[in-house]
Amino acid sequence: MQLVNRLQVPARTIMTPGPVEVDPRVLQTMSSSILGQFDPSFTSLMNETMNQLRQVLQTKNHWAYPVDGTSRAGIEAMLCSVIEEEDKVLIPSFGRFGGLLTEIAERCGAEVYLMSCEWGSVFDPEDVIKELKKVQPKVLAMVHGDTSTGRMQPLQEIGYACRELDVLLIVDAVATVAGTEVKTDDWKIDGLITGTQKCLSVPAGMAPLTYNNRIEKILLERKSIEKGLISPSLTLSGSERRIRSNYLDLSQLQDYWSPARLNHHTEATTMLYGLYEGLRIILEEGLEVRYARHRLNERALVAGIEAMGLSLFGDHQFKLPTVTCVNIPDGVDGDSVRMMLLDEFGIEIASSFGPLHGKIWRIGTMGYSCQQRNVLLTLAALEAVLLRHKVKVNTGEGVQAALDIYQNTSVTV
Amino acid sequence: MQLVNRLQVPARTIMTPGPVEVDPRVLQTMSSSILGQFDPSFTSLMNETMNQLRQVLQTKNHWAYPVDGTSRAGIEAMLCSVIEEEDKVLIPSFGRFGGLLTEIAERCGAEVYLMSCEWGSVFDPEDVIKELKKVQPKVLAMVHGDTSTGRMQPLQEIGYACRELDVLLIVDAVATVAGTEVKTDDWKIDGLITGTQKCLSVPAGMAPLTYNNRIEKILLERKSIEKGLISPSLTLSGSERRIRSNYLDLSQLQDYWSPARLNHHTEATTMLYGLYEGLRIILEEGLEVRYARHRLNERALVAGIEAMGLSLFGDHQFKLPTVTCVNIPDGVDGDSVRMMLLDEFGIEIASSFGPLHGKIWRIGTMGYSCQQRNVLLTLAALEAVLLRHKVKVNTGEGVQAALDIYQNTSVTV
Repeated sequence: MQLVNRLQVPARTIMTPGPVEVDPRVLQTMSSSILGQFDPSFTSLMNETMNQLRQVLQTKNHWAYPVDGTSRAGIEAMLCSVIEEEDKVLIPSFGRFGGLLTEIAERCGAEVYLMSCEWGSVFDPEDVIKELKKVQPKVLAMVHGDTSTGRMQPLQEIGYACRELDVLLIVDAVATVAGTEVKTDDWKIDGLITGTQKCLSVPAGMAPLTYNNRIEKILLERKSIEKGLISPSLTLSGSERRIRSNYLDLSQLQDYWSPARLNHHTEATTMLYGLYEGLRIILEEGLEVRYARHRLNERALVAGIEAMGLSLFGDHQFKLPTVTCVNIPDGVDGDSVRMMLLDEFGIEIASSFGPLHGKIWRIGTMGYSCQQRNVLLTLAALEAVLLRHKVKVNTGEGVQAALDIYQNTSVTV
Repeated sequence: MQLVNRLQVPARTIMTPGPVEVDPRVLQTMSSSILGQFDPSFTSLMNETMNQLRQVLQTKNHWAYPVDGTSRAGIEAMLCSVIEEEDKVLIPSFGRFGGLLTEIAERCGAEVYLMSCEWGSVFDPEDVIKELKKVQPKVLAMVHGDTSTGRMQPLQEIGYACRELDVLLIVDAVATVAGTEVKTDDWKIDGLITGTQKCLSVPAGMAPLTYNNRIEKILLERKSIEKGLISPSLTLSGSERRIRSNYLDLSQLQDYWSPARLNHHTEATTMLYGLYEGLRIILEEGLEVRYARHRLNERALVAGIEAMGLSLFGDHQFKLPTVTCVNIPDGVDGDSVRMMLLDEFGIEIASSFGPLHGKIWRIGTMGYSCQQRNVLLTLAALEAVLLRHKVKVNTGEGVQAALDIYQNTSVTV
């Protein structure tokens, strides 16, 4: 038997698109002792978490709760609970996570209609609406902010069109909720999923989601009660339209999150403590103030990157405010730069996926990581590392440009 | 905007079949700051967790890692990754969690052959083997310890027969791993799943599992690479035999847990810290010593319950050592007793499901909750609450009988 050492976590500044740093208040709360899943102290915590989630997700929906899994568990829960064999699903994809929606919808048995655009741009809503009318899908599934390309898709026009055409709009808002405006109800989003490890600044492992009664109607039609929870003498419906997953079956999950508390899984106690405290911090800060903080740090970072002499990737008009994509200068080994940032400075930035791997760096400004100190230190360290990689930069100017922004701006809502 | 109070967790002694109390060392470790998912400090933590898991699961399998979700996420990951449309699956079910296996296998598209026995008993291995030969399934899926009835199924004979007949044996060992002997390799188990919130004594939210190369072979045949991770120019295989879930696709998860680190989800950082420390505590204690501790506390609890004048539910020969099921005396409101235990003493015990609800109480002795102090206090409190419910008990005798066990036994391995 080999015994291993106790965990030793080195100090890190995490400037990736997630997982990001977590407010120590969240970690302290997570060190509270365990409560049983049916303990009234715990079930009221579940209810209060739902209340807070509704506020952060800007919705009046009754259903707003986390799925116990990372973000894509929430996305799959939403899609597999709604999509039935051969349902038409339209997916306008502008990056890796549109690809993920496609992959999941296909595995759910959907007939997927894929729209693509070049990575680095987004869709003209008119083009999506045109396709919507042509395809007449049951569901339009779309990413709000795709971290792989650092772009954000305007959704309001598309949302209105979906409602008018009686199409369900399901949105992956993992990269945007609590970092920039996401108006679930105002934008007519029927189902929305987010994750804990980005702008919510809670450790990875939960996927909060919300949906309205248009989606709930489908869930109730497809619902069955789990074998073993009912007396064996009762007949099980075993509907033809049964949801393919048990773990990710929202019709059963909502019973667990309702006063019936019909047992499904065992809620992830400590993660829920963390989510509760993370949401509390967000609401204390205030959504508008929080969005403004994210904008300010983004502005400072962008100013610093450009002053240094680097260029940004993608269509600036649709830049995702929580991720900044930087073109890797010709001839530079992007991974070597990232490695040196981590090894020498304890600062982490990200690469990207698929066609963009080796082409761009991605710097996140999300949640608790999104603070002046982190932005300034990242710029200073990046300059030093680029110099070591023999890249010509405008020495000293990056940090100065960012400081200018901070010193000349008061955070305004 | 309504602001809510900070989390306040009341003191609890948790004597249910999970979630159970957690060693403060685990919670302290979980309050460590976040590491990025590709940070070498984090990926080596992933590797060391795999190493420790192999030891706790008593296997030489290469693949041993957690799924980021509660126990049933692990069960569904295993079943949906192995089972294909119309595969024959034999499920001998002796409680609620056999029902869960059935439910999940059906949703995977399996042709399920269900064997049932009365709740409170288990199967004669010979009967299972007879059915195995008749049905010739691809998979035999079975629960090791079913907490709903408090029974444990002997597996070794069945395991040998499965290997001989070339049937895959998949075992839900959620209630037994780290509390009583589970020999993955020696019993010829091909795939085994456990959960964190029972005898591992880590908060709920992860499902460690292991599987051998017989299962890996199927995974590799069904594997596909996620859209968005490969260049769009490459063809996607989109195999006919594609696994229905993305989140629970073990063929993709094992790439994430391999040196390739092909991105799938974002690993649940803080939960992994907890699992690492929880496994470390188990291996420090030593598996044999730990099993002996569980046996001792079970003996004391059983002695106390019987001395008090209560009777145990089910076939004693196949009692699950980590859960003790007590018949609720006639005319007593079982839920009222549980409520009073919680409200007045801060002690939680469980009811059961389906046909056993209102018939039995279930008292867990699992992991960190499984300690002398907890057993003695639970017996004392239960006596007091039963007296308040006008139940005739042998006053004072329960605790004395348990104390006798503790004072006359040295923990032997």
